[in-house]
Amino acid sequence: MTQATAPTQSTESHEGSGSTHPLVAKHADVLEQATAALAARSYFSRYPESPSPRVYGESAAADGQAAYESLLDKAFGALGTVATDGAWVGEETSPYGPALGITYPHLDLDAAVAAAEEAMPVWRDAGARTRAAVCVEIIEGINRRSFEIAHSVMHTTGQPFVMAFQAAGPHAQDRALEAVVAGLVEQERVPASVVWEKPGKDRQGNPALLRMQKDYRIVPRGLALVIGCNTFPTWNAYPGIFASLVTGNPVIVKPHPHAILPLAISVAVAREVLAAAGFSPDLVQLAPEADGEGLAKVLAERDEVRIIDYTGGPAFGAWLEEAGAASGKLVYTEKAGVNSIVVDSTDNLRGVLGNLAFSLTLYSGQMCTTPQNIYVPREGISTDEGPVSFEEFGEKLAAAVGKLTGDDAKAVELLGATVNDGVRANAGGLADLAEEADGTVVLDSRAVAHPTWPDAVVRAPGLVSLDASREDIYTQECFGPVTFLIATSGTDQSLAQFRDTVREHGAMTAAVYSTDEDVLDAARDAAADAGVALSENLTGQVFVNQTAAFSDFHGTGANPAANAAYTDAAFVASRFRVVTSRRHVE
Amino acid sequence: MTQATAPTQSTESHEGSGSTHPLVAKHADVLEQATAALAARSYFSRYPESPSPRVYGESAAADGQAAYESLLDKAFGALGTVATDGAWVGEETSPYGPALGITYPHLDLDAAVAAAEEAMPVWRDAGARTRAAVCVEIIEGINRRSFEIAHSVMHTTGQPFVMAFQAAGPHAQDRALEAVVAGLVEQERVPASVVWEKPGKDRQGNPALLRMQKDYRIVPRGLALVIGCNTFPTWNAYPGIFASLVTGNPVIVKPHPHAILPLAISVAVAREVLAAAGFSPDLVQLAPEADGEGLAKVLAERDEVRIIDYTGGPAFGAWLEEAGAASGKLVYTEKAGVNSIVVDSTDNLRGVLGNLAFSLTLYSGQMCTTPQNIYVPREGISTDEGPVSFEEFGEKLAAAVGKLTGDDAKAVELLGATVNDGVRANAGGLADLAEEADGTVVLDSRAVAHPTWPDAVVRAPGLVSLDASREDIYTQECFGPVTFLIATSGTDQSLAQFRDTVREHGAMTAAVYSTDEDVLDAARDAAADAGVALSENLTGQVFVNQTAAFSDFHGTGANPAANAAYTDAAFVASRFRVVTSRRHVE
Repeated sequence: MTQATAPTQSTESHEGSGSTHPLVAKHADVLEQATAALAARSYFSRYPESPSPRVYGESAAADGQAAYESLLDKAFGALGTVATDGAWVGEETSPYGPALGITYPHLDLDAAVAAAEEAMPVWRDAGARTRAAVCVEIIEGINRRSFEIAHSVMHTTGQPFVMAFQAAGPHAQDRALEAVVAGLVEQERVPASVVWEKPGKDRQGNPALLRMQKDYRIVPRGLALVIGCNTFPTWNAYPGIFASLVTGNPVIVKPHPHAILPLAISVAVAREVLAAAGFSPDLVQLAPEADGEGLAKVLAERDEVRIIDYTGGPAFGAWLEEAGAASGKLVYTEKAGVNSIVVDSTDNLRGVLGNLAFSLTLYSGQMCTTPQNIYVPREGISTDEGPVSFEEFGEKLAAAVGKLTGDDAKAVELLGATVNDGVRANAGGLADLAEEADGTVVLDSRAVAHPTWPDAVVRAPGLVSLDASREDIYTQECFGPVTFLIATSGTDQSLAQFRDTVREHGAMTAAVYSTDEDVLDAARDAAADAGVALSENLTGQVFVNQTAAFSDFHGTGANPAANAAYTDAAFVASRFRVVTSRRHVE
Repeated sequence: MTQATAPTQSTESHEGSGSTHPLVAKHADVLEQATAALAARSYFSRYPESPSPRVYGESAAADGQAAYESLLDKAFGALGTVATDGAWVGEETSPYGPALGITYPHLDLDAAVAAAEEAMPVWRDAGARTRAAVCVEIIEGINRRSFEIAHSVMHTTGQPFVMAFQAAGPHAQDRALEAVVAGLVEQERVPASVVWEKPGKDRQGNPALLRMQKDYRIVPRGLALVIGCNTFPTWNAYPGIFASLVTGNPVIVKPHPHAILPLAISVAVAREVLAAAGFSPDLVQLAPEADGEGLAKVLAERDEVRIIDYTGGPAFGAWLEEAGAASGKLVYTEKAGVNSIVVDSTDNLRGVLGNLAFSLTLYSGQMCTTPQNIYVPREGISTDEGPVSFEEFGEKLAAAVGKLTGDDAKAVELLGATVNDGVRANAGGLADLAEEADGTVVLDSRAVAHPTWPDAVVRAPGLVSLDASREDIYTQECFGPVTFLIATSGTDQSLAQFRDTVREHGAMTAAVYSTDEDVLDAARDAAADAGVALSENLTGQVFVNQTAAFSDFHGTGANPAANAAYTDAAFVASRFRVVTSRRHVE
């Protein structure tokens, strides 16, 4: 009896209560473009990745450096009035040598949580589109400070400057915008209001419509906590910050104690924009900690925290996933894994070696996406330069790395500086590692002298070859400039080991080199089984450790390295809920 | 340098590998209609809710009853070849009296899990649209057995027949279809393939496009477990079953040991359709248990299980949320809460009383959506019949219930039978409850004699009035035909208690009666804060305990009663992942 076609329906979109916020019109175009790009997963970038003066202005580089230097050796005051307990914390030291000497106001957590919760209802009721527009305004403000942020990232992570500019600036800003439109689209999939008309009968049995108006209200999940990491403080934090913010949740940002400044600047911009737009700046708060305070755990255990985004080590990440999820919090993690490459054959050996060498060299292998395990058949591979044995492949890759990093002054612009003692120990321990693995040091990690920053510890990539049977060694993450060349019985074993180690230990990235379509198909199947994205035959300017916002997912959520992906619907859909109210209408 | 407009992009949709499955064309229209309805949240129903012979055919009712009766007192053989350990289990007894006498093949769990995992890759690679079409074919097959399922539900849940037909038949089928299209839409939001073109430069510095083909592959999360409940075995299980299945995951259905048959028939249909469509029937398996076996926990603890959907008691639900989430499983629960109604004023007292009386009476209050707490100002309310005191309101509601349930033969067609001893104890304990609460039994729960099924224990709704200060009593769920009339200091306190108790104890439904727009606004705010859907001034044929598929969400996921909603994007988006493969193209 209910099969009739529904009559005309009126629907309207979420506008929020009250009149339209002026930022909605200002950023309508960018939201439209970014939304279309995300749906198509086509090429899109709003923020130019080149630090060229033709793009950012003649004085931008110098102004940014001066702005960064003006922050050093003093208290960071740009956060405005915050819910502080009066303490000032911060002991950042540049991997390039100097101490930053900056202190930040330490939060009074009870007051900070109360301020966040007080700020939430107005933000909630502003509506999804206003929130998205305010988020874009924040990102635009962050973009204008890209040079300042680049210096802050260089001197907290050890990234080389150009990489710090690109990855922590425009690339991170594009990921932020991606999270904003992902969240906006998700909220706007539910209409704000609909008139629902069910064919029925009145009390006399005559046909009559049952008509109801139903209003769908977006309600945020609650206070969000974003826990930043040392190596990519902005790139890995922005997706969580903006995904939570655009869906109505206030955010507390807990930076890594060694990389506070990039997020402090970002949070300061957010607070200024929020206040100027008529909202409470306490929708985004910075929670710096003294080294060793353990603030992430304290915050994660607070009942008010309902969402946690985390990038960092696997032990704490696993604890968060367990303890957070067990208490009903949404927990999104990116931890660590063993990024893998299967080398089967190539018609462009030079391209393979150049591409791989660059991937290993960039930031001294300190990217969560840097390849660690390279599987090569013991019998060697076929190439456009003829057969290449396992040993020859290692020698050639070592030579390519050597060529790329041979000149100290040029090398440091790719390598940056080592971020911590763990990386330095890994880089310095190749001989011991090879001995333990019954393997060979194919290329030792060279100590590079930095011409500008003599205190920086800079390390070029090292290569250790070992047998595929030594899973005990190569299934452990060895963070930094250490890569394993793993001798297999052939590509079948390479693919099997790739699939099995990623399933068990996780990976953010994977790649395959082959001229054989059957091998590529098998690699795609292995990648699907392992739940990791696959790059095929990269020999040019695209590298396995880089993903493009709006098109490539970062992580899949399908293997132990990360339970989330930047940015799919699953990353945003649970950050808000929908509450309906319904009533009869004439 | 990356600001140029993207060139033309080619995208294609997920078709799966190989040729198009014939069911895709067969069900294209229904998928299109249902998808449009879900996006608009407008009125839509595919499966007629009336058990009329004009809709289902002259012989459908008799045939369905005969089919049901033919299943009694024997082994259930319709599941075909299953991964059984050889045991046969099942001790269902109808709440109307008779033992069903049916036994079901008990699974060998290792073999069942292996069969499910073996079935997954082909199902994964079939593609989202083929899976959706196969799911529709299953639901159509289930719909054709609506009368048989209605009898099976009546005799496992105690629902009256017409309700069993509607709620466990067409309404559940509509919810199943809703889950299918929700999952389909979510998967198809990601294109199957795109050519990505980034403006760049070649080695000579001339403009050149960086072109890559990127393929996005949907990969299922893994084995799904659906744990059914006693009172709504199909309605509450179908969303999880079909949400997991359409997103590529095999499903093990663990029915409540007292309500196996409705899901056994459903699973049998699914297995037949899957096999006929060329897939492994083991994509859907039934895991019946002997009473007290604790199979839900055993299954939930298996590593292979990656998704759990649960409806049932809060203690086990909370354990699942903790233990399941802690081990990285997706866990969707619907537990219990204190559904609440705020009565402030009305211009249609008769309509209020009739509507409320029906809501309390239907299935003897054994719906997870039945109101439990009715807040009424101690001073009374204003109505179209003049001022009505708190006591008068209680008397009038009692009279309305009495009128609706006064005739035993008619009453049982609404009340059905009590499902278990807990409900019977609650119904029989009103005097003690009132004494403990310093309250009053306004209406005792009347024992109704069933004219057809003398062994059925049938209870009409009872009402206990008590003071708002006795939260210790009314914040506990008292499942069954027991409703509290709570005397408050006024509507402000009613709304505050409503908000606070739902935030803390959860609710599936809420309603308000008021002629005052300010009160309605305040109620909407309280409902948003509490995270519960609100029905306003229901005085006609729509009841607070009923939701419409495709338009109303069932649950919100925003209060402790349920962490999920039927069916929002959050319910489906995490059940699959996307694995990209990318390569350069000319």
